Parts: sequence; structure tokens; C-alpha cells
Amino acid sequence: MKKRNDFTMSCPVPIKDYPYVLLAHGGGGKLMHEMIERMFKEVFVPNDTVNSHDSAVLNCSTERIAFTTDSYVVQPLIFPGGDIGKLAVFGTVNDLAMSGARPVYLSLGFILEEGLPMETLWQIVRSIKQAADEASVRIVTGDTKVVDRGKGDGVFINTAGVGLMEHHLNIHPSSVKKGDVILLNGDIARHGMAVMTVREGLEFESAIESDTAPLANIVLTLLNEGIEIHCLRDLTRGGLASTLNEIAMAAKVEIRIDELSIPVREDVAAACEILGFDPLYVANEGRFAAFIPKKDKEKALAVMKKHSMGKGACLVGEVIGEGEALVTMKSKIGTTRVIDMLSGEQLPRIC
Amino acid sequence: MKKRNDFTMSCPVPIKDYPYVLLAHGGGGKLMHEMIERMFKEVFVPNDTVNSHDSAVLNCSTERIAFTTDSYVVQPLIFPGGDIGKLAVFGTVNDLAMSGARPVYLSLGFILEEGLPMETLWQIVRSIKQAADEASVRIVTGDTKVVDRGKGDGVFINTAGVGLMEHHLNIHPSSVKKGDVILLNGDIARHGMAVMTVREGLEFESAIESDTAPLANIVLTLLNEGIEIHCLRDLTRGGLASTLNEIAMAAKVEIRIDELSIPVREDVAAACEILGFDPLYVANEGRFAAFIPKKDKEKALAVMKKHSMGKGACLVGEVIGEGEALVTMKSKIGTTRVIDMLSGEQLPRIC
Repeated sequence: MKKRNDFTMSCPVPIKDYPYVLLAHGGGGKLMHEMIERMFKEVFVPNDTVNSHDSAVLNCSTERIAFTTDSYVVQPLIFPGGDIGKLAVFGTVNDLAMSGARPVYLSLGFILEEGLPMETLWQIVRSIKQAADEASVRIVTGDTKVVDRGKGDGVFINTAGVGLMEHHLNIHPSSVKKGDVILLNGDIARHGMAVMTVREGLEFESAIESDTAPLANIVLTLLNEGIEIHCLRDLTRGGLASTLNEIAMAAKVEIRIDELSIPVREDVAAACEILGFDPLYVANEGRFAAFIPKKDKEKALAVMKKHSMGKGACLVGEVIGEGEALVTMKSKIGTTRVIDMLSGEQLPRIC
Repeated sequence: MKKRNDFTMSCPVPIKDYPYVLLAHGGGGKLMHEMIERMFKEVFVPNDTVNSHDSAVLNCSTERIAFTTDSYVVQPLIFPGGDIGKLAVFGTVNDLAMSGARPVYLSLGFILEEGLPMETLWQIVRSIKQAADEASVRIVTGDTKVVDRGKGDGVFINTAGVGLMEHHLNIHPSSVKKGDVILLNGDIARHGMAVMTVREGLEFESAIESDTAPLANIVLTLLNEGIEIHCLRDLTRGGLASTLNEIAMAAKVEIRIDELSIPVREDVAAACEILGFDPLYVANEGRFAAFIPKKDKEKALAVMKKHSMGKGACLVGEVIGEGEALVTMKSKIGTTRVIDMLSGEQLPRIC
């Protein structure tokens, strides 16, 4: 089979015959078979190097693997800086990266709504392939379901991922200790505001673009440089505030962050202000917090700043106590307040 | 944490406070956190033996693993003999089994519709746990999303699975040869008709129950007994006819089956007749076809018949030629006809 790496190519399912996804594209018959063979297999497993049948049979060179899953239901499907396909690849890659694993294999499950334009599906498929190439992972197995019109919302995607554990650290909240510093790899709240400004029809001079990006390489670089990483977490649903609260609870530690040190782009801060969001709680898709011992602080910051995914790396806080789960923030005016978890949600369906 | 293996226990999310799933249960805040901690983690990873953070970190004792995924969108969510949760576990377990792998780890992704009764979710969660126990797999990682009312359909579930490859056969269509016999483990078309009779409001003396069942153990038993399995496939979407066509195409072989030898229960045949379905194309969730060399036929049948998942095992056909992809059937009256793939679908949303 010819490798489909020309991303300008036209949809391999003829749009004139099938301008929209039909229920039959998920029915197990000829139409589904053709869509899978022409559109999915040829893009994702062009050389049939994977022994793909009901499952993919894969080489596994480590004694420990990382395994994770996420479903993606973002609306709109395509937004400044990304789309649901890119999110579905990078999101799962990043979850693997947060345990220090090298992401290698992804699965891809589509739930399509009857009536989805075939061209939209094709655009998302190409985006998934580009993202997978960028993150050095392979889509090795998949599934497609179609639900009746009005019982879905265009496209939902599930990706699960397998990563190889090539290090021997225990990267986990239980490794977090008093004295650890907390580093971020850049400014926060862009992904959530990229999606929300589109949904709310807000216009800025230039659109706020999602920060969606693969984080495995920067994490592996930190590990290769010998940084003793205690814990990592990407700042997705619930943003920095929720992430720190989850870690504080799991590790039973007290975390103090400094508002002045947390980078928020001006247009993002303005959008948050207008729409009534606190950037601390807004989702990111290419940002993570690293808990590392103080001794490694300077080196880790230097490594991160040299990496394309860490140019805006900064120190935002510290673990100041053990025993009690608490997150506090020193505000711009010098006061200290508790940063709690939100009880509900700020932003529905941003990932 | 107390292990939640008492399946009569009441819903750990208080129904009186939260009778229905809210958008906030997917928002990354307190409500989501509570639902995950109380309802999912306590049921699925009660002893926290899994290093579960953003990904699960798992032991992997083999050099080859099997990896697969499926999404489940069946309607109704609960049907005679099963429910979407049971399907989601057994379906993915069976896909792993079809490569001869021992299923060990599952991921679990929920896409919930706002307004889903919490009690329904709880019933499905318990069913998933029971099915996982029955199939000897562990749910080690998961994700929950909630979509607005009218943008989903109660519950969609994605499971991905990892299995260990403990044999050295190449169980794959490419191993299928002229002379191979085709064995089934029992009567066909029950799952599809169980779902359809409920949807269509057909009543029989006793309900047709789905055949949904885990198939890994019977496959591993065949392997342990030294049966040289060439290819395995579970007869899901598209049924026996589509499965055989897929294998014929992948292996470029001619397959001949014998209608008289294919078991269909009387009530199932009657339901097919009334609703206008051909049982050959109706989905099963606990049935598989095994392609094995003729020399192993008697032994394999004996092993299958002794196993609880193979009491109705039978020989249904043979690979009679190589080079051309074709499936034919000798009918009850002695004529031979081509069994083609369906172009559309018979049964929407039966898995």
C-alpha cells in the first residue's frame, strides 16, 4: 500500500458518493470495511508492519509499561491552534509522559454521529496522523461506531496509549516531599480560552491559540539529564489549581504558589476577565507541573528553557509542609489565600 | 479502602443529592473527583495496587503484547442477558483472546449524557466489575466525560485492553491454509436478536438472551492442549458471514460452509424470520470461529465441548481453495450460493 503522508490529498472515501457519514458506516458491512481500509488503515498503518487483526500484536521491550485512556468531546471540533484529533493524540501522549514513560502505541476509537460531513472526518484523520508523527507514536488499533443523528455530537474520540517505562523512578504524588520546588513549562490557560472565545464569539486582534502540544520529549530530556523528578502532572481539566489540589491530597502536603510568578498571556488574562474565568482553573493541553528536589532546580529550569516545549519554563511554588493537604497562593498584593478545588466546573467540554 | 465486592450495595454517590449525572460530574472539579473516588476507584482499584496517576504503571512479563480497543453504543443499555458494561468488558477481552493473548489490563472511558440516572450508571459500574472479575482482567485506568443533554445517548463506553502473548503462534488470517477446518463454539445470532426483539417489542415465551461471554479461557485452553490454531475471530458486527468474508479477503482463500451444520436456536430463527434478518449476518458476543489444521479437528472439538464456553462446538466449514477470496454455502436443499458481505448494515447499535 502507498503511504498516505501527503496531507493535501483528497478524501479517500469519495465525497460525491458519501458526503456525510451514514449509520451504515458503522454497521460492520461493506461501507464500514471500505472506510476503514481506505481512510484509516492506509493512513495509520500503511505498511502493515503491525500484526493487526482483532488486536494489534506489539513488541514490548520493558518490564513495566504505562497504560492510559481519555475520551475527547470538545466543541467546536476545530478551534484556533488545534482540533479534536490533535487533542486526542497529544492528551494521551501527555498522560503517558506524566509517568515518565516513552509513549509508543495508541488506539483510536471513533464515535461518529450520522450526518457528519465526510470532509470533516477526513480533516480530523489527517490531523491525528500529523500529531502522531510529531509525537513519535503509532496508531496501531482502532474502532468505529456510528450513532443516529441527534444521539452524538459530530465526533467523539477515545484514545488509549501504551508507553514503555525506561526509567526506575517512582514518578507519583507519593514521592512528593517538603522542600520540592514546582516548575511549569510555560504560560497557562490558553487552551480553555482558545475554545471559549470561539464558542462565545469573542474577537481579539489575533485569535488565542490553544497550547496543545506533546510533552513526552521534554520529560524524557529531563530524565536523560538526570533530574530526579518526583511527580509530574499535565494541567488539563480544572487547570493548575485543580492539579495542585489533587497532588496535595494524594501526597498529603502543603503547597504554596506565588501569583506573580505564574505566567498568563495578556490577551488570555483579558479573555478570562471578560468571560469571568480564573486562569488558575482553566484547562491547558501542553502545560505540566514538575515537582523536583530543590537541588535540581537550576539545572531543570535550564534544560526546560532550552527545549521547544519549555521556553517559558518558570518556578511557581514550593512544597512547604507535610501532613495536611492544602494549596495556598501568595497574591500579587502580598496576601495569602487558599486555592480550593472547584465544586462544579468552569468550562464544559473543552477536551 | 474497603473492597466493594458486594454487588447489592447501594450507590456510593448519594442518589438523593445527585439523582442524575450533571455536566459538572465531568468538569474536573469536586463533583467529578468525588464520583471517580467513590464510585470508580473504590470499585475497580480498591487496594491501590496499581500505581495509578495519569497513567497506570503495570508489570509486563512478555516480549509481545496484544493491544485493542472498542467503543460501545448499544441501545437499550440493558437487555436480556447483559448490558453495555458487560459487553464493553467481554468485547475487548474477546478481541485480545482472538490473537491468543491472555487479557490482563483494561482501560475504561465513559461518555455520559447529562441527565443519566445515577442509579443506571451505578448498575453499569457493578456489571463492569463483575464481568472483569469473571474474565480475570483488571480495570486499571479510566476517564469520564459528560456531554450536554441531547448530545449523547445515556452512556457510551470505550474499553481498550492489553494482553500478554504467551504463545509463539502467528494467529492471523495469513496463517490460514487450504484444508483448514472451521469450528464454532456454539449457536449463532443470539446477541443481535436479544437486542432487536427488545427494541421491536417482540415477546416470546422466554426472552432471547444475549450470548455475551468471555472467550479468553477457552482459547487459552485450546493453546495449552497444543492445538495449532491458525486463525481466530469473534463473530461480532456483521456476524459469521462478515467474519468469514473478512478472513477470506485477508487470507485470499475460498471458504465453504454447510448451512445444516450451523446451529441457530429455534426461537432465534423465528425472531430472525419475523424481523427479516439472516442469522448469518447477526452479531454475536460470545461466539468465535477457529481455523485449525484438519489433523487437530477431533481433539479441538473435544476440548471445546468440555469447556463451559464451547458446549455447542461444531464443525461448520472448510478452506477449500487458495488464491481467490470467496465464501460459499451449501444450503439445506443442497444448492451452493455465494455468501457476500452486506453493503450496509442490518442492525444498528447492537454493540
